[in-house]
Amino acid sequence: MALAAGARVQARALLRPCACPGRGPGAGAGGGGGGRAPGLTGLALWFAGSRVLSAAPGRTPAAGGGGPGARCFGSPRVLVEPDPAAGMAVMKLRKPPVNSLSLELLTELVISLEKLENDKSFQGVIITSDSPGIFSAGLDLMEMCGRDPAHYAEYWKAVQELWLRLYLSHLVLICAVNGASPAGGCLLALSCDYRILADNPKYTIGLNETQLGIVAPFWFADTLVNTIGHRAAERALQLGLLFPPAEALQVGIVDQVVPEDQVQSTARSVMAQWLAVPGHARQLTKNLMRKATADRLLKQRDADIQNFVSFISRDSIQKSLHVYIEKLQKKKV
Amino acid sequence: MALAAGARVQARALLRPCACPGRGPGAGAGGGGGGRAPGLTGLALWFAGSRVLSAAPGRTPAAGGGGPGARCFGSPRVLVEPDPAAGMAVMKLRKPPVNSLSLELLTELVISLEKLENDKSFQGVIITSDSPGIFSAGLDLMEMCGRDPAHYAEYWKAVQELWLRLYLSHLVLICAVNGASPAGGCLLALSCDYRILADNPKYTIGLNETQLGIVAPFWFADTLVNTIGHRAAERALQLGLLFPPAEALQVGIVDQVVPEDQVQSTARSVMAQWLAVPGHARQLTKNLMRKATADRLLKQRDADIQNFVSFISRDSIQKSLHVYIEKLQKKKV
Amino acid sequence: MALAAGARVQARALLRPCACPGRGPGAGAGGGGGGRAPGLTGLALWFAGSRVLSAAPGRTPAAGGGGPGARCFGSPRVLVEPDPAAGMAVMKLRKPPVNSLSLELLTELVISLEKLENDKSFQGVIITSDSPGIFSAGLDLMEMCGRDPAHYAEYWKAVQELWLRLYLSHLVLICAVNGASPAGGCLLALSCDYRILADNPKYTIGLNETQLGIVAPFWFADTLVNTIGHRAAERALQLGLLFPPAEALQVGIVDQVVPEDQVQSTARSVMAQWLAVPGHARQLTKNLMRKATADRLLKQRDADIQNFVSFISRDSIQKSLHVYIEKLQKKKV
Repeated sequence: MALAAGARVQARALLRPCACPGRGPGAGAGGGGGGRAPGLTGLALWFAGSRVLSAAPGRTPAAGGGGPGARCFGSPRVLVEPDPAAGMAVMKLRKPPVNSLSLELLTELVISLEKLENDKSFQGVIITSDSPGIFSAGLDLMEMCGRDPAHYAEYWKAVQELWLRLYLSHLVLICAVNGASPAGGCLLALSCDYRILADNPKYTIGLNETQLGIVAPFWFADTLVNTIGHRAAERALQLGLLFPPAEALQVGIVDQVVPEDQVQSTARSVMAQWLAVPGHARQLTKNLMRKATADRLLKQRDADIQNFVSFISRDSIQKSLHVYIEKLQKKKV
Repeated sequence: MALAAGARVQARALLRPCACPGRGPGAGAGGGGGGRAPGLTGLALWFAGSRVLSAAPGRTPAAGGGGPGARCFGSPRVLVEPDPAAGMAVMKLRKPPVNSLSLELLTELVISLEKLENDKSFQGVIITSDSPGIFSAGLDLMEMCGRDPAHYAEYWKAVQELWLRLYLSHLVLICAVNGASPAGGCLLALSCDYRILADNPKYTIGLNETQLGIVAPFWFADTLVNTIGHRAAERALQLGLLFPPAEALQVGIVDQVVPEDQVQSTARSVMAQWLAVPGHARQLTKNLMRKATADRLLKQRDADIQNFVSFISRDSIQKSLHVYIEKLQKKKV
Repeated sequence: MALAAGARVQARALLRPCACPGRGPGAGAGGGGGGRAPGLTGLALWFAGSRVLSAAPGRTPAAGGGGPGARCFGSPRVLVEPDPAAGMAVMKLRKPPVNSLSLELLTELVISLEKLENDKSFQGVIITSDSPGIFSAGLDLMEMCGRDPAHYAEYWKAVQELWLRLYLSHLVLICAVNGASPAGGCLLALSCDYRILADNPKYTIGLNETQLGIVAPFWFADTLVNTIGHRAAERALQLGLLFPPAEALQVGIVDQVVPEDQVQSTARSVMAQWLAVPGHARQLTKNLMRKATADRLLKQRDADIQNFVSFISRDSIQKSLHVYIEKLQKKKV
């Protein structure tokens, strides 16, 4: 279950203490650095090649500082706000504009999670976006286009790794979905223990891969089936449905829908409820419920990587991706 | 997955072009030929030995003709109305009085489906009954009574074949359930991608085998579990429940209930939604979701046939069937 | 699937004809003998060491007698009221104060069930509590504390045996849940074919093991998943949720909630509906739906026993149990 060694080293080097911003959305956005590039209009651009944008220097918050009560840490793309008194931390995705899951973001998420798992002060993590409006646009198209097979393999291994870490984490993971959450963003939410979605009709959630002409891998599908059942999953996956909040709640892809300004506080209340359960018994129970599903991937992890590499390397797929990315980049100008 | 060679040849010979009736229910009933035998009173007779009735000559519509925009084709018991402009066809069961699934009807359904699958003009099929009031009464008792083991084996193989073809079809299958749909009729509906039921309290749907003293085979049960979940399926199967429309919708055995005169138009709207999804990705996703269930049968297909043959050959079962069929035939006089 | 020989002999000796009390709650409570020890305050004490209390002599109803229409039988802790005219019997747990599932109660339940299964007069059993207010507190802590590994192994085998017998019983089992039903009590209910819960907010039901710091074994979890689906089960098991009636109905852990004084009559009506189905077909269908789940335990039954023994023998677990039991016993004084 180890990450590719190269990726691990690279990402460890990125970890550093950071200033701990206040928890208001304004402060968070400021602390996260960067901001949206001019001309970006949010949802229409999820799947944009955000790597280009995020390559600008100067977005890493200054080291030192520290918030009220605890020292923050994190990495350029993952802000961690520890709250040891509550036994938990908040982990914020901050890879503007759309938190696309680049290799770097995937790696930093795994390392931040590992760090919290190894620290007995923490029994739970709230996962949310530092850029309200978009939780995560999902996998990063720039990682899948114009690269060599070795890169595709490394990338896919990192996607698998994040899912395995999240899905089997002994920590309580509460997902505060404060924005749109398509495809890989949805998978991230589904891998947590509980999902709270902000009540905004623009914040849709779902595994919409077919709408983009691609196929969610079997372990994405398994995770959805475990959450909403076989029939609802079959229909949602075939049609590539993105559920707005009321429908998302009804089908069960999220557990709760609350007004946008109550997402974070609700996540904290729910976390308190989960942390009140004896931890060891809860962890063993979680493993009991999820191990078989994770094992399905573990038993054929390399084959799954080869599948992805050969699929994404096809000329027809590469051509489609190029066209799509160029269209998105023209919009940005 | 091939049909018995004999059945295939026999059925191919039956395929012929046919006049394409208008799509109104009146025209459809006329075009379907035949009609109900005097004295038959609908639902009470599903499972009647409709083979005797349907053996009358002259019910095959004349060759040639052709409907608005496209030439119809079909076979004596399956009318196919192609609509290539919409990328789809309507397939109507027309084996009066109750569309019981005789060996001939099963074979013709498979061949019609195969023909549409091999024609790139078609990405979807609406399956419905040419005799509103009854969708299908299910398996044909006349195929299971007073015949030799070889016939029972051939029949059961054809039942398996239809299910496998439907369940794994790369076509979008929308079922317009315009009448009662017990037992094998329900299985046919469950094998599609989406089910729309006409809102008429007489149009019940379910796997009611236990009520007849028989047991739905494991793959009938698997298909139901995949649709409504384990608990609801267990209860429905043990009790042999037939759900009227409101309950059918609530338990999830159908996806939508609409007024009787809107079933066909709703099916077309739903089809348009499904056909808007990139086809290749949708097909792969469907296979991903259904392959394991189909494989369960494929791995023990012969054993399943032997099971059926030895069950149906029992004296006690044959006696029950005789009594039941005689009772039905007396009612017809 | 056999019980330990010793347990079987011991329990058979306990079986004897008994006076058949009337069916009103008052008469039932009297006939059950015993009653609550002074100072016991119900729910707060489920998991109390009821063995000590129930060891008092004189609680076995006198032999002979017989109710209206049929002779009752039973054992000290299980009262069986046969109703052959209706093809069924009522089986009442009477191990005051909380029907904790001691080795003796488990054994007597299995033997009573076996006796009914071997008598063709009976096709169904209503399982209920002779002490309204508590259905069953679940496994008996006294069996798990301060004993040797051989005893733990014998006990756990009896727990497995009861579940296997109930879950695969060819009888229709309707559970009339007339009181709180945590942990093992809930498992007992889940193993039946249908659950009716009395509408009293104190009567909660669920697998709350994690709240006690322990882990429900995989086959408890499987049984819950089969009943309420994977997602709801995962959440309920991790949090150790006990559902009050309205929530229990909504999540599907019970099938029906009725006023407290209608639980028994509703159970009889429901039983009549189930018994109207041809029995042989219904039994085969039940087996079809449940065999795979039971086989999961059967394939690793010994390993499951060893797991339990090594878990329960841990010093830390024994210490927790001692503390907990002492606290309960102090409350009783």
